[in-house]
Amino acid sequence: MSENLIGVDIGGTKILMAVTDTNGTVKKRMEIPTTDDSPQEILSQICGVIKSFGRCRSVGVGIAGDVDSERGILRFSPNLPKWRKINIKKYIEKNTNIPVCVENDANCAAYGSYVIDGGRKYKNFVTITLGTGVGGGIIIDGKIYRGSTGSAGEIGHITINPDGPKCGCGNRGCLEAYIGTQGIKNIAGQLGFKAEKVTPATIAAAAEKGDRTALDVYKKVSEYLAVGVGSIINIFNPDMISFAGGVANNFNLMENNLRQELAVHSFETPLKHVKIVRTKNIKNLGAIGASLIFPKEDL
Amino acid sequence: MSENLIGVDIGGTKILMAVTDTNGTVKKRMEIPTTDDSPQEILSQICGVIKSFGRCRSVGVGIAGDVDSERGILRFSPNLPKWRKINIKKYIEKNTNIPVCVENDANCAAYGSYVIDGGRKYKNFVTITLGTGVGGGIIIDGKIYRGSTGSAGEIGHITINPDGPKCGCGNRGCLEAYIGTQGIKNIAGQLGFKAEKVTPATIAAAAEKGDRTALDVYKKVSEYLAVGVGSIINIFNPDMISFAGGVANNFNLMENNLRQELAVHSFETPLKHVKIVRTKNIKNLGAIGASLIFPKEDL
Repeated sequence: MSENLIGVDIGGTKILMAVTDTNGTVKKRMEIPTTDDSPQEILSQICGVIKSFGRCRSVGVGIAGDVDSERGILRFSPNLPKWRKINIKKYIEKNTNIPVCVENDANCAAYGSYVIDGGRKYKNFVTITLGTGVGGGIIIDGKIYRGSTGSAGEIGHITINPDGPKCGCGNRGCLEAYIGTQGIKNIAGQLGFKAEKVTPATIAAAAEKGDRTALDVYKKVSEYLAVGVGSIINIFNPDMISFAGGVANNFNLMENNLRQELAVHSFETPLKHVKIVRTKNIKNLGAIGASLIFPKEDL
Repeated sequence: MSENLIGVDIGGTKILMAVTDTNGTVKKRMEIPTTDDSPQEILSQICGVIKSFGRCRSVGVGIAGDVDSERGILRFSPNLPKWRKINIKKYIEKNTNIPVCVENDANCAAYGSYVIDGGRKYKNFVTITLGTGVGGGIIIDGKIYRGSTGSAGEIGHITINPDGPKCGCGNRGCLEAYIGTQGIKNIAGQLGFKAEKVTPATIAAAAEKGDRTALDVYKKVSEYLAVGVGSIINIFNPDMISFAGGVANNFNLMENNLRQELAVHSFETPLKHVKIVRTKNIKNLGAIGASLIFPKEDL
């Protein structure tokens, strides 16, 4: 049997498909836009690409939302309102004759990072995704930890200050309210950062050029991040924590201060033990992780 | 082989020993004071009590501090300064000829609660101990989760407000800084609660008699507690959370408000799923848990 694996990362704006090997090395990749078409039409396009990739062992699909990973059903996705109770596994298996499994995208990212960044050696592993939202995935003893109803790992919704800014989830002071894209923009506004368009990327570009205010924005972001990550270290005592998601492209602007602040918020022994890294492959991590999640014993 | 199990809970002021069955029912118990004697002398006393209990399958020992549970060594205990690098397992096994295992006391409490409060049915389980300090133990898929260097579960040291009060650990705004015994006394002081001696127990006694200020103290405590527990629910998505430790005797004064506040801080689905209880047996939980931790396959 071929050891080519296919991973499909269905996002709100694009769908990334990749062929990898069992170490997560990308051999081929293909992107298609996430159109407003029906889920069936989009899945049919995905099946077309899968077939064009040639022989493979399995297909893993990662998607944001509430996933029933045992049955391969997407119950609900915040970014894809048309996708409700879609049996993704059944559809793709019927059309391609390849075994399929479906997983929440943050769990895919964590599992992908566990393989490509940790080489499957760091068994207790947390990935934090920094982007529009702040998410996370947890690997315990080398396996995805989904929690009891599949929603574990909501690291963006740790409360780091109950009197903090309002979060999209209804709570106040979630980590995401501080350092999700909107939170970063708010910090930039408070510190008086000016640009034609204020985004995490434009702030980072200015910081790279030495703009003092832009550097301060990322310093502040790393401070908030350290509060959440410090708690994760004290609770999980993990082997490795990795950062993924678009905003992790600017990890270099946060890393030093993050490490300094972690010494305040977390215990010495677990802090000394944990490796903290940015993932090697931000762009493809979701698809890589999706390709790797298929359990071997199920084949 | 006898299914009598022995649990030993070595605390800073007393040592509780219990004989239980595999469901954690206490059949006999015995308390001795934790004197200032050498660890060897105290362990010799413990062995005397163990022998007096008659035939049993195994001995589990729970103790606060940094425990190497694989080798049965207590590396260091904050409450017992004389106990450094003590091979508890070896000492008791040599003197009693019964297999011994040693575990951190918070993990024992969690495992004990997993059995007596959850009937081994709630596989992802968190126990939070409320006392002088705030601690915790985590059960994942029915097994104690120790983390990578054995320090997982430090739920008292989640930062719930980085600008909060100084914590004994050096950080600011840990859950423990707010609702450990000293934190509760501070809240009582801020709210103007007056009593001859202000302790969590005297505040609770006044609250039970309808003292408005005392009731407000526990309302405030439950608010802070909800911030930490809300994060635990969002991260772990557990089946059950139980409360143990002396201050959990006053759980009835916090429960209603805790549940209300959790609706603010945690996501709906995992909150609906999780059962929140006070343990049935606060007094004996450490010894019960210690008696149960011995893995069957090791016999």
